[in-house]
Amino acid sequence: MSFNHFDASGNAIMVDVSQKTPTMRTAVAGAVLTLKPETVQSIVSGKMAKGDVLGVARLAGIAGAKKTPDLIPLSHPLAIHHVAIEFEVDEAKGTIGVMATVRAFERTGVEMEAMTAATVAALTVYDMCKGTDKGIVISDVKLHYKEGGKSGVFKRED
Amino acid sequence: MSFNHFDASGNAIMVDVSQKTPTMRTAVAGAVLTLKPETVQSIVSGKMAKGDVLGVARLAGIAGAKKTPDLIPLSHPLAIHHVAIEFEVDEAKGTIGVMATVRAFERTGVEMEAMTAATVAALTVYDMCKGTDKGIVISDVKLHYKEGGKSGVFKRED
Amino acid sequence: MSFNHFDASGNAIMVDVSQKTPTMRTAVAGAVLTLKPETVQSIVSGKMAKGDVLGVARLAGIAGAKKTPDLIPLSHPLAIHHVAIEFEVDEAKGTIGVMATVRAFERTGVEMEAMTAATVAALTVYDMCKGTDKGIVISDVKLHYKEGGKSGVFKRED
Amino acid sequence: MSFNHFDASGNAIMVDVSQKTPTMRTAVAGAVLTLKPETVQSIVSGKMAKGDVLGVARLAGIAGAKKTPDLIPLSHPLAIHHVAIEFEVDEAKGTIGVMATVRAFERTGVEMEAMTAATVAALTVYDMCKGTDKGIVISDVKLHYKEGGKSGVFKRED
Amino acid sequence: MSFNHFDASGNAIMVDVSQKTPTMRTAVAGAVLTLKPETVQSIVSGKMAKGDVLGVARLAGIAGAKKTPDLIPLSHPLAIHHVAIEFEVDEAKGTIGVMATVRAFERTGVEMEAMTAATVAALTVYDMCKGTDKGIVISDVKLHYKEGGKSGVFKRED
Amino acid sequence: MSFNHFDASGNAIMVDVSQKTPTMRTAVAGAVLTLKPETVQSIVSGKMAKGDVLGVARLAGIAGAKKTPDLIPLSHPLAIHHVAIEFEVDEAKGTIGVMATVRAFERTGVEMEAMTAATVAALTVYDMCKGTDKGIVISDVKLHYKEGGKSGVFKRED
Repeated sequence: MSFNHFDASGNAIMVDVSQKTPTMRTAVAGAVLTLKPETVQSIVSGKMAKGDVLGVARLAGIAGAKKTPDLIPLSHPLAIHHVAIEFEVDEAKGTIGVMATVRAFERTGVEMEAMTAATVAALTVYDMCKGTDKGIVISDVKLHYKEGGKSGVFKRED
Repeated sequence: MSFNHFDASGNAIMVDVSQKTPTMRTAVAGAVLTLKPETVQSIVSGKMAKGDVLGVARLAGIAGAKKTPDLIPLSHPLAIHHVAIEFEVDEAKGTIGVMATVRAFERTGVEMEAMTAATVAALTVYDMCKGTDKGIVISDVKLHYKEGGKSGVFKRED
Repeated sequence: MSFNHFDASGNAIMVDVSQKTPTMRTAVAGAVLTLKPETVQSIVSGKMAKGDVLGVARLAGIAGAKKTPDLIPLSHPLAIHHVAIEFEVDEAKGTIGVMATVRAFERTGVEMEAMTAATVAALTVYDMCKGTDKGIVISDVKLHYKEGGKSGVFKRED
Repeated sequence: MSFNHFDASGNAIMVDVSQKTPTMRTAVAGAVLTLKPETVQSIVSGKMAKGDVLGVARLAGIAGAKKTPDLIPLSHPLAIHHVAIEFEVDEAKGTIGVMATVRAFERTGVEMEAMTAATVAALTVYDMCKGTDKGIVISDVKLHYKEGGKSGVFKRED
Repeated sequence: MSFNHFDASGNAIMVDVSQKTPTMRTAVAGAVLTLKPETVQSIVSGKMAKGDVLGVARLAGIAGAKKTPDLIPLSHPLAIHHVAIEFEVDEAKGTIGVMATVRAFERTGVEMEAMTAATVAALTVYDMCKGTDKGIVISDVKLHYKEGGKSGVFKRED
Repeated sequence: MSFNHFDASGNAIMVDVSQKTPTMRTAVAGAVLTLKPETVQSIVSGKMAKGDVLGVARLAGIAGAKKTPDLIPLSHPLAIHHVAIEFEVDEAKGTIGVMATVRAFERTGVEMEAMTAATVAALTVYDMCKGTDKGIVISDVKLHYKEGGKSGVFKRED
């Protein structure tokens, strides 16, 4: 197996996509935060009075998608056309699911933009809750869906 | 429970740390990548000939720590003094552990810098392997250790 | 009235422009600085000997236009093709008008790029003059002209 | 009158503040948006259902304060310790006042950080409302208060 | 002779390229580091055990190419499609040649991206070796090749 | 010889400077551009009418110094206190010398900030002149002076 981010001599490159035809690309990536149930309850119930934790995290995720070329060394700068971030809160289990969708008409996929958006949103929730809940864990950071480009549709089953 | 990143009216703020005395701060945060075992083997065996995946990811993580104030909306810009990233590879299980250490003499902690460094390093491994292994999952993104500041030492047990 | 930067549930999004056809977009935005007349005179007369305040501000405005996606959370990253900034100095009234023109072939307008360019140029004039003139006011930050896209030409009358 | 951002030959410099002693610095700067009254009403009444325009603008302003050294060419990179942004809405007049407070223990003042925070917050409100209200004007961008450093307290009267 | 980055009045502008047709652009630029021969030997022989100096520099150069619009005030933001950096080490002479290739389908050339990539890679080698070799010199920073656009192919002979 | 930007296993790190005492640091670095003599004459004679090439380059260099932590992967983020850039033009030889001075009270030196400032200023001159003078070469990028820190004063003789 070889990695296409390295040339034949093993040197890192930004892969040449100049000969590829732009197509519409969509990627959906997710992350899950596990917090103390009371932290999740405070986030939900306090939205109005105490501060909108998920609103802040959503904006951070959208801005994070735009910063992907700065963060991922071999990624291409892409002109993304759409970013949306949704949260799914389970107060009983103490989990917050993050789902980020990114779309662009480009020569290469937007998986990294979606992965970065989901991760930065999750890290931002962590930042705002870490004062009272240091044990928070982020897991299940993964690609859920991908469309556009030669490799066709990818849809995660689990 | 309330969140200190919001004022009494629930408005987001960058918390005022101007009255705090700077102290030496250390934070250690981690992440775990689960890949196909053959992907991990290619990363390990191909380091020289095919490209140094972990070397690229390490640099991305170090650079990522410096970008924390850009990514996390309510975080303070900090002059970090040290970043190191270590990987622990388990070829049999198909996992790569990432551990990031950050240190600074500051008025507030460097947890977010360590969390961001670990996450960006893990996302960069994902980026380089996603061509052949779309099922990669990042999990266990969490704080392992924290020192300095009023709340004293935090050491995760699990 | 609803805002198109939020979805049906009121969540902030980067609006999906992927289905829009790129067209040539132009936007012109302005700002007005009101300073002490003697500050304006120093800017004009001192250009050569004491430093080119407006030259510095012009560059800051052009660079500012490129930073728009970093500053405005829900804006799209755009590949702008042209930025020009003109100043209109009225020594008697003690005012400096800033007018920024931005052009791009894109799926969405460049109003924010022009508004940001004009504003950053004005803030930079403020920065260089604040040592001796703390009372400076920036006003009339507004869109003057817009062309391209479905909504057609907008031309401000006042 | 001369400008301290230029040397004796009129060349732009980042002024040498290395010999100054750090002191606690505070700056308060403001901006005023004038919109159609119905736009202001939608912002206020729709906060929950249609999207939190001012919440987005507040975060943009806080992040904008951190980007000041990138935007203002001759400004010093400062480690700011606090940013808060308040809005004062007058539905009858159709105005939204923005007031930004910044604090840092530094060798030079934080006026530009406060001015930038107020301006970026105002531009972000503009961005979200421009679809239905192209005539919005931002005015009264000015310093209201400044404390710390040799020049002492500045308090604007008007 | 006049400079096209200034308008007829001598004001700096981002040149309007909106009427140009995008074409495939390639640029190759280089730089040469002259170090102590023993420093070069340490870089070559120590690659595995002591750290991969050129691997770090290569990544810095690729990331640097993406930062060109941030660094060069009047440059256009470009969506680059390919960056590769090669090193040519001469242990006897104590030199390391850097050669950067950049490609993009754009309205304007990618010379500045290639020049920036080569330079940032060379500066990064300097950074890692300056502890023991303060006399390092970077020279021969120049364009070697350029293709695409109206002016046709440029090929440097020396 | 070993490199202090790598740990004992050869892994890249941001060196730990947390135990070092901050001292006043100064660094002076230079670069030399060699252009066609007529290009240099146009730069000098056209300053007023055709555009201030060196004024633009000076600002780019100052801004470039602030971007050093973004460009040089293992560098520390530093709060620089002073940047100045001087040009020495030799019309007969067709050369422009760039000299950048940076100062900060920090735990580590500011050589990279000075080297980056000089280089970015030189690249910016190149950018503005490349339309008519593709053969421009940047050379002699080197450290001229360094003060502060344990290693004492470094003064280049050649």
